Amino acid sequence: MELLTRSAILALPKRKRSNLMNYVSGFKSANLIGTISSMKVTNLAIFNSVVHIGANPPYLGFILRPLTVARHTFQNIEETGFYTINHINVNIYQKAHQTSAKYEEDISEFDAVGLTPEFKADFLAPYVEESHLKMGLSLQEVKHIDCNDTLLVIGKVEALWLPNDCYDENGHLDLSALETIAIGGLDTYYTTQKLERLAYARP
Amino acid sequence: MELLTRSAILALPKRKRSNLMNYVSGFKSANLIGTISSMKVTNLAIFNSVVHIGANPPYLGFILRPLTVARHTFQNIEETGFYTINHINVNIYQKAHQTSAKYEEDISEFDAVGLTPEFKADFLAPYVEESHLKMGLSLQEVKHIDCNDTLLVIGKVEALWLPNDCYDENGHLDLSALETIAIGGLDTYYTTQKLERLAYARP
Repeated sequence: MELLTRSAILALPKRKRSNLMNYVSGFKSANLIGTISSMKVTNLAIFNSVVHIGANPPYLGFILRPLTVARHTFQNIEETGFYTINHINVNIYQKAHQTSAKYEEDISEFDAVGLTPEFKADFLAPYVEESHLKMGLSLQEVKHIDCNDTLLVIGKVEALWLPNDCYDENGHLDLSALETIAIGGLDTYYTTQKLERLAYARP
Repeated sequence: MELLTRSAILALPKRKRSNLMNYVSGFKSANLIGTISSMKVTNLAIFNSVVHIGANPPYLGFILRPLTVARHTFQNIEETGFYTINHINVNIYQKAHQTSAKYEEDISEFDAVGLTPEFKADFLAPYVEESHLKMGLSLQEVKHIDCNDTLLVIGKVEALWLPNDCYDENGHLDLSALETIAIGGLDTYYTTQKLERLAYARP
């Protein structure tokens, strides 16, 4: 095996380090976050850091990079208090990836990449019509991470939309029926195949 | 589509809600965290919440459930300042899952499930010999999440061990060569298949 010490990692060229260190956490969730500004411009951005925070009550978090450049997603969440999280599926991953381009504030990524904003059940923020599992969230809590100025943004799940009959009586959700994909690193997309579901472990 | 509102989610039976809400973030990373206590008892625990925090310098985070019951992993990290994160691969996922059973404090999950603690390069915490990508970390920062008493634990990557020739000149890592798997929900394991790597997006 090869050993990369901390100093060897720090000595890597920037792009190589950035790519490599984005892989080492393992597979990542693939989601689009939808928001709307107070000027009614919709915004859509891909995030690979959505993480489970709690089930009762239901909370999800995501990591936001430092606010050294404009972060329209966070700006809109702070302004309105609401956002959506939408699973990226195999049919839309290329469009989802394209939302990471730096569009001007008055351009909606929905229009720019060809995805459809969907407003429903009076929720303020736009869902992604093409996504098969989507949630409406309200901002709950923001934690500043001191070591590198990133933020952990936590939201409360207000609404969960999903196809009929895609989860069983125990709450097991069929992620393959949703065609949800996974991400490796910053730019590599993966389909998945179920290996096995394991029983609750006891000593 | 079916709509589950916040109150419908809260009204689900506990286990059903717990399972379902653990799926909705999308695919999760699959890692084993290795520690050692001040009494020299090794500990190994599966985590599905390891998340990228930063590349320069390299930081990783994970979410820890409330400290209402003994959390040996966190206790050991606080006592010693060090831990390892080890990718779970297709050969060890059943043993990895078994670490989630509630073993007594004086029992090492390494022994209980049949994985091998590996001490190397003078790092205090044990790596998992059977894992193909493993990292030694030092504790950097702990954030308390107010809404549900969970913790975000952030560590600095001190050492990264991986097979020779598993990443390219741009830092793209071949996760399939590592046989790294993904998790859905709390207990479902997935292999992956690469769809596509996409270029850096520009407007």
